[in-house]
Amino acid sequence: MSKSLEFLTEALRRLPGVGPKSAQRMAFHLLQHDREGAAMLSRALGQAVEAVQHCVLCNTFTEEEVCDTCNDERRDRRLLCVVETPADQLMIEQTLTYKGLYFVLMGRLSPLDGIGPKDIHLEKLVARANDGVVGEVVLATNFTNEGEATAHYISEMLKARGLRVSRLARGVPVGGELEYVDAGTIARAMLDRRAT
Amino acid sequence: MSKSLEFLTEALRRLPGVGPKSAQRMAFHLLQHDREGAAMLSRALGQAVEAVQHCVLCNTFTEEEVCDTCNDERRDRRLLCVVETPADQLMIEQTLTYKGLYFVLMGRLSPLDGIGPKDIHLEKLVARANDGVVGEVVLATNFTNEGEATAHYISEMLKARGLRVSRLARGVPVGGELEYVDAGTIARAMLDRRAT
Repeated sequence: MSKSLEFLTEALRRLPGVGPKSAQRMAFHLLQHDREGAAMLSRALGQAVEAVQHCVLCNTFTEEEVCDTCNDERRDRRLLCVVETPADQLMIEQTLTYKGLYFVLMGRLSPLDGIGPKDIHLEKLVARANDGVVGEVVLATNFTNEGEATAHYISEMLKARGLRVSRLARGVPVGGELEYVDAGTIARAMLDRRAT
Repeated sequence: MSKSLEFLTEALRRLPGVGPKSAQRMAFHLLQHDREGAAMLSRALGQAVEAVQHCVLCNTFTEEEVCDTCNDERRDRRLLCVVETPADQLMIEQTLTYKGLYFVLMGRLSPLDGIGPKDIHLEKLVARANDGVVGEVVLATNFTNEGEATAHYISEMLKARGLRVSRLARGVPVGGELEYVDAGTIARAMLDRRAT
């Protein structure tokens, strides 16, 4: 195999979820059928590495010092929603139910993977939440073991500093049939039941 | 989302098998955890697009006019093995059972996808096989419907020009248990049975 092709296959393996076979398939596909796409991807990667940094306020990816969301005057500055990733933030934005600001951890606590409080920028979060304007922090980390542990850790930390902290509601998903929902979820929905 | 990030996500979708969610995950991963990998991939793509072309003899990817395999003096020039892709060629090389040369179609006949004889360089193959040195053409296209049809088409074409054409043997895979091998394969193995 030619050297450029070997180098390309090796580089494609740096993408998450791409093994040796997929990397080879991708390299062959780009060179045989989509050289324009390959050139475009090359440019996009170079440009992103060059331009993308972290918002000084919410820690998400941005090309400016402060991201568009944090700069948006119409947002409610008394609410701060903590999410694990920019993808989670996008999902919440799509619901159109939240008009406050965000803080993006860019990860979750995971002692087994050696990811501690410093790796998810908790000092920055504490400083951000104590700006004197934020009145409530909404924890929207995932409902996985690690996400729950992260939420618990942040909750204790912020409550100790006198902040109001809430967590997304757990319960039966919309459209969920009880027969097919797991028992843990139903148990939680029963405990958290609401007056109608 | 920032413009560079949107452009990167869009560009990653040009990779085969990568949908919108994976593309986003890849972009976030590279920017958060592996900027070096992103820069490396950018360079590798640019370099490959620039340098990689097709071997004038066997049609595979190479950076020279003629690839290393075709240039290899120790190879048997009387044998020409026809494969669909460079990946297939690599698999055959790994078996260490073949010492002839190759012709890489870079595809297969697939009328439903609009891929005809011209798209898989059959004129080039005919010219190559008629160099006066090649004595046998081994068809090693896949044993899928399209691969079989391609082999059949090439076989007719080359035999009409007086060349000897063979096909990889079909049969029960090494380590295969009859109970778990499909009936079509066993039927073929029965028809093609060999004296021991």
